[in-house]
Amino acid sequence: MQNTSQRAARIVSRCRELARLTDVPGETTRLFLSPATRDAHTLLTWWMREAGLESSTDDIGNVRAVRRAAEDNAPTLLLFSHIDTVPNAGAFDGPLGVLLALEAMEELRHTPLPFHLELIAFSEEEGVRFAFPFLSSLALTGQLAEEHLARTDADGVSVAEALRHFGLDPARAAETARCSPNTFAALEVHIEQGPVLEAEDASLAVVEAIVGQSRFKLFFEGTANHAGTTPMALRHDALVAASNFIVETERYAANYTQLVATVGRIEALPGAMNVVPGAVHCTLDVRHPRDESRHAAVAHLLTKAQSAADHYGVKVTATLLSEQRAVPMDQALTQKLHNAAERTGVNALQLFSGAGHDSMIVAPHIPTTMLFVRSPGGISHNPAEDVREQDVAAALDTVINFLMHLHPHHP
Amino acid sequence: MQNTSQRAARIVSRCRELARLTDVPGETTRLFLSPATRDAHTLLTWWMREAGLESSTDDIGNVRAVRRAAEDNAPTLLLFSHIDTVPNAGAFDGPLGVLLALEAMEELRHTPLPFHLELIAFSEEEGVRFAFPFLSSLALTGQLAEEHLARTDADGVSVAEALRHFGLDPARAAETARCSPNTFAALEVHIEQGPVLEAEDASLAVVEAIVGQSRFKLFFEGTANHAGTTPMALRHDALVAASNFIVETERYAANYTQLVATVGRIEALPGAMNVVPGAVHCTLDVRHPRDESRHAAVAHLLTKAQSAADHYGVKVTATLLSEQRAVPMDQALTQKLHNAAERTGVNALQLFSGAGHDSMIVAPHIPTTMLFVRSPGGISHNPAEDVREQDVAAALDTVINFLMHLHPHHP
Repeated sequence: MQNTSQRAARIVSRCRELARLTDVPGETTRLFLSPATRDAHTLLTWWMREAGLESSTDDIGNVRAVRRAAEDNAPTLLLFSHIDTVPNAGAFDGPLGVLLALEAMEELRHTPLPFHLELIAFSEEEGVRFAFPFLSSLALTGQLAEEHLARTDADGVSVAEALRHFGLDPARAAETARCSPNTFAALEVHIEQGPVLEAEDASLAVVEAIVGQSRFKLFFEGTANHAGTTPMALRHDALVAASNFIVETERYAANYTQLVATVGRIEALPGAMNVVPGAVHCTLDVRHPRDESRHAAVAHLLTKAQSAADHYGVKVTATLLSEQRAVPMDQALTQKLHNAAERTGVNALQLFSGAGHDSMIVAPHIPTTMLFVRSPGGISHNPAEDVREQDVAAALDTVINFLMHLHPHHP
Repeated sequence: MQNTSQRAARIVSRCRELARLTDVPGETTRLFLSPATRDAHTLLTWWMREAGLESSTDDIGNVRAVRRAAEDNAPTLLLFSHIDTVPNAGAFDGPLGVLLALEAMEELRHTPLPFHLELIAFSEEEGVRFAFPFLSSLALTGQLAEEHLARTDADGVSVAEALRHFGLDPARAAETARCSPNTFAALEVHIEQGPVLEAEDASLAVVEAIVGQSRFKLFFEGTANHAGTTPMALRHDALVAASNFIVETERYAANYTQLVATVGRIEALPGAMNVVPGAVHCTLDVRHPRDESRHAAVAHLLTKAQSAADHYGVKVTATLLSEQRAVPMDQALTQKLHNAAERTGVNALQLFSGAGHDSMIVAPHIPTTMLFVRSPGGISHNPAEDVREQDVAAALDTVINFLMHLHPHHP
């Protein structure tokens, strides 16, 4: 029997072991259905066996292991995260949730629970190989379609072909990758990938919702003119108008703690040192946990763009590129997760997730809750991505406590 | 004998004729020492002969024609502009000054003047072919150096080789392209290439000075972060800092009628829609007719850049790329040019030139004055570049009147 800090150390060291399994030597890049993913499956399967769990692989490539309850017809609680990575990734985005869940299952090996415990290591979340994310959680929730299987990677290999090449049967993926019948709840543990917990000096946060998002491209159209011969008063400088909009966007969003608004791309045309910019292309990304607040912010910011443009005699058009509704986590489960943290003596914050996660796909189908673990420096998608063992220990304690107090029939 | 409006019409039609002589079919692109330049020389030489003037070509490729005074040892008044163009140019930037001067010389053919009148059509002003401007006026003022002759074009052909290929002698260029001895004054007529005359509803302006210029590159360095997980308060957004600087730059420059300040280029890195910009590269171009005012403006704007950066927790560095002092035109000549406009019933404004011209190179060596002709729409370096015949007529009247009242020994 191990104590929590030993288990936390093993979680961290196993994440780092997995990070050595890579498609690109010298970094951590482990794409969906790649050779490194096969290696990761082998190692993960071995760790599951050590924990007394037999595993199987479903036909989307997820590794699954079940710890059965005494009663065969008990419902199932699902623990999940993903083991694919972005290019040149860190060790914890995804694997932390899988290995922490495995440790919790081993710790509870001899503790009777009124539900089956299923761990699923999702094979695809990041969307790198097929330029499309969440294939595993889409399959889990019955949303995997033929069009997904037909998507091709950079080499022209389809998802279906890649599955076959991995020894799986794409024709059965929609069926075998579904969640187990009678799954009544799901829990994902994930690193925060942001700086809030560190700034607040907290180890953990329960996630209230995954924010909704609106993305626009904006086009400011003024008049390109000679930078020497055109007096300021006779200019229609598209970059000055766009800059005014960018400044106002930051100023407005800074007033609302749950709102983030970002201009990430900008291009001024013609882009010569001695020419007044005649046109500017830029993007706007707005996120908020409440859809109505996001819509209000978007409306306000687009009005700001228009008034900035008007002020400088410039035209502006905004085109919606994508929109995603906020996804709330299950309130009752989230409250229970919060209570579990409290009982273990950890002050867990309540946060919104500004990034997308599998929980966003799962939550509309299965009551879902999510636990964030502090990201030192807020760094993620980067080899410097890290966790603190004490935070991992706090998360493990919280998950174990949560599982021990959960009663499927009294939610 | 022609009246002024007929002469003005001929100036405009000849500019349009010259514009048909191009190195690139379908547009007007006439580079230094190109085949189209040879064609332009042929046509210009013919027009000079029609005006009773014999012409010659000096060894930098300028076409020159002199109308001699009765006294052989009279001083020389120089009329000049250029006949090379930018790529895809208009018809008037350069040629207007040459063909207007030719028309004035023909008009004064039988009028005794106390000075020789020399017209020079400069072969190189725009700096396109050898990525270096003002070769003709540098040669005229004794500043042509070996390093200029060694410059090469995109095909690796040097200026010296191009001159030889054109039938000229690079070894003699520094000598034969010098201004005539005893040149006591120079006059350049040029389109404004800006919108001020049109905005002020005026045909002409005398140029008081060509503005000085400072160019910088700025680098704002913040922190790239996830646009979803990084709250506004924890960001160090380089683009927000740069945008603040751009807005402040416009606001400041708009307070000073003679100051222009432009951010023409901008790049945000990494430049992804969902990443808070970690770095921004941009440029700053500041121009003012008084050097001390330009220096003060630059100092103020760089302070603004620093305070914008500080406000957002971003670093900024500014690197001086180039600096050019203001060049005043000759005050006495400019006053005489202004008086001439007044005598002909034209209200000529006083303007600064925000763009560089040959007069900038000539003025430190020969007392020089410059006349601007209204640019409809402020458009230049563009096929839509235009002039109004009535403005050309006003300029022609002014130049003729100026020449008839000029006395070299009573400046």
